[in-house]
Amino acid sequence: MTINQEHSAQEIFETLETLETSTEHAALQSVRWTGEQLLLLDQRLLPEEILYLDLKTPEDVWEAIRQLKVRGAPAIGIAAAYGIYLGVRHLTVDGRSEEDANQNLYQTVLEHAQYLATSRPTAVNLFWALDRMTNKTQVLLKAGLNLNQIKQAISEEAILIQAEDEETNRLIGEHALTLFEDGFGVLTHCNAGGLATSKYGTALAPFYLAKEKGMAIQVFADETRPVLQGARLTAFELQQAGIDVTLICDNMAGAVMAKGWIQAVIVGTDRVAANGDVANKIGTYSAAVLAKAHGIPFYVACPLSTLDLNTPTGADIPIEERHEDEITQGFGKRTAPKGVKVYNPAFDITPNEYVTAIITEKGIIRAPYTENLSRLLEQD
Amino acid sequence: MTINQEHSAQEIFETLETLETSTEHAALQSVRWTGEQLLLLDQRLLPEEILYLDLKTPEDVWEAIRQLKVRGAPAIGIAAAYGIYLGVRHLTVDGRSEEDANQNLYQTVLEHAQYLATSRPTAVNLFWALDRMTNKTQVLLKAGLNLNQIKQAISEEAILIQAEDEETNRLIGEHALTLFEDGFGVLTHCNAGGLATSKYGTALAPFYLAKEKGMAIQVFADETRPVLQGARLTAFELQQAGIDVTLICDNMAGAVMAKGWIQAVIVGTDRVAANGDVANKIGTYSAAVLAKAHGIPFYVACPLSTLDLNTPTGADIPIEERHEDEITQGFGKRTAPKGVKVYNPAFDITPNEYVTAIITEKGIIRAPYTENLSRLLEQD
Repeated sequence: MTINQEHSAQEIFETLETLETSTEHAALQSVRWTGEQLLLLDQRLLPEEILYLDLKTPEDVWEAIRQLKVRGAPAIGIAAAYGIYLGVRHLTVDGRSEEDANQNLYQTVLEHAQYLATSRPTAVNLFWALDRMTNKTQVLLKAGLNLNQIKQAISEEAILIQAEDEETNRLIGEHALTLFEDGFGVLTHCNAGGLATSKYGTALAPFYLAKEKGMAIQVFADETRPVLQGARLTAFELQQAGIDVTLICDNMAGAVMAKGWIQAVIVGTDRVAANGDVANKIGTYSAAVLAKAHGIPFYVACPLSTLDLNTPTGADIPIEERHEDEITQGFGKRTAPKGVKVYNPAFDITPNEYVTAIITEKGIIRAPYTENLSRLLEQD
Repeated sequence: MTINQEHSAQEIFETLETLETSTEHAALQSVRWTGEQLLLLDQRLLPEEILYLDLKTPEDVWEAIRQLKVRGAPAIGIAAAYGIYLGVRHLTVDGRSEEDANQNLYQTVLEHAQYLATSRPTAVNLFWALDRMTNKTQVLLKAGLNLNQIKQAISEEAILIQAEDEETNRLIGEHALTLFEDGFGVLTHCNAGGLATSKYGTALAPFYLAKEKGMAIQVFADETRPVLQGARLTAFELQQAGIDVTLICDNMAGAVMAKGWIQAVIVGTDRVAANGDVANKIGTYSAAVLAKAHGIPFYVACPLSTLDLNTPTGADIPIEERHEDEITQGFGKRTAPKGVKVYNPAFDITPNEYVTAIITEKGIIRAPYTENLSRLLEQD
């Protein structure tokens, strides 16, 4: 289904309505489970085209994650969870004993989890969601359910991950909003919005909630080279929601801070290490250093599932390097000479000393992070 | 004349040779006076296409500057100087007295100088070159020359500005190189290279000289959104010259510094205020703040003509804001939603406290800049 942006909001709404199931506000939902189909909003085509892909297999999900059709740590985790279900939905007993059939399902879940984990190396939510799905399957096996009951429960677990994400994001937004005041200018980088999650987003959640409460926040969105998630996604979804957003190039962040237009920076993250070091989209570190130099607080918003106490520091987080074409011809047109050397890391590490606070669904964490993060997860 | 990059170096060389006059290394010269024609390399088309435009009038020059076909403060000044000559080359006595004809020429020079000064507001070299041309004309009038002699002398003044620029840049490069060591990684922003000047460039001059001397410098070039002068021009001209260059997105500068890959930053400038504040391409300020946070020296390379003691501080330098299309559809393809608010300043101000040294043809200036810059210009 292709919905062209030229169509009126009414036309888009009507077309989407035919796809609606239980969820409200589904218009720009990145991952949508209809009960039958896994529909994925192809984010590479935004903002020019709203296209939902119908993913049928774990391989489809792997490709979608790999090619950034779906992106944003929580949305990747949600897509991968449904991918696990897609891999088992057609399994039948097929002449096996019930136990063999269940074991075959478990093996299939494990194989697909291992496979899906290779789609992107940095996002910890991906591994978290896959672990949750395999652990749930193990529990279901031990509960003495039959194959169809297990399959049903696996699909419900994926739905639950998505529903929990929405509630998590609302809570993150509520906590974040206590850090902002009416009239604040707030800079964000990349897209940690509704398109990166089930709804609201993490870093963008306070903007949606501020809008609901009638609080005026002026958002500045870094365009976020090379893939332009800020221009294509953040500016797009905030504009659609009627939130005051101004698009800038990444290299304008310092100048905008120097003008006194920014009172806070807030970003999402793909993984937080045990010591509070933060992995996020390339350019986050530069924004954090600039914020510190201007005395502006730098906030990181994420669900608990993004906290990875098994990773001691940022230095232990693998940084994905992506293809040079994203920089040399990322817009369908060559913008750099052929054969030029390119360095294209997808993420960078912001050391904990630049992080004013980490905002989770359980509240706001400040330094010392090693102590406070581990205490937070113990409570969990 | 269009030279496609697909052609071999040999083909390009042979084609260019037909245009050669007195200058060597003219292959990528941005402004070329053949004695008859003003040929201008259309930098908007690089690196995909090497196209020389034949400018015939001051209006052609105004358009070329305005549309960034020629850019880089010194190259703009050189183009504007030739523009003054283009405005008078066809003047004749036409029945006037010799004095009236000369006065008519002077009026024409003044009008074209005022007109050309409106092409871009930030580059002081533009005003400097136009002032020099009008002052020279005044001197020539007083010297009792006839119309043809004055026209000839005006063309020679433009040629002299260009020749002096080449020598200036070589000297800037020699001074800058004393600050670098074999094996240094050096970051640069935008394009202050041969394409921005008559030859060598300002900020890129030390890289050309290092190459000549066999010194290994690894250059990192910021792509420089929105117009991508770093990707299209700096990476291109350094690659053509066989200099080791790695292209990065602007937002990667911090991450590359954190890796310890950068030992110095060097940039050009469009105007230096009396107190040492520096106006340069948007993103320069962010790079300077990042350099300081990493303990990396931040150098500014420029000819004396870029020093503007009539401008007390950076706050007094007008900052050109350019069209939002550069950000929302700068690559022939829309990359941001229609109607989104955009802030697109072409330049920013780097306060003097971030500037480790200013490198001119007369040597290296350090703080206190107010004192040391004015002393330098008094010597001049």
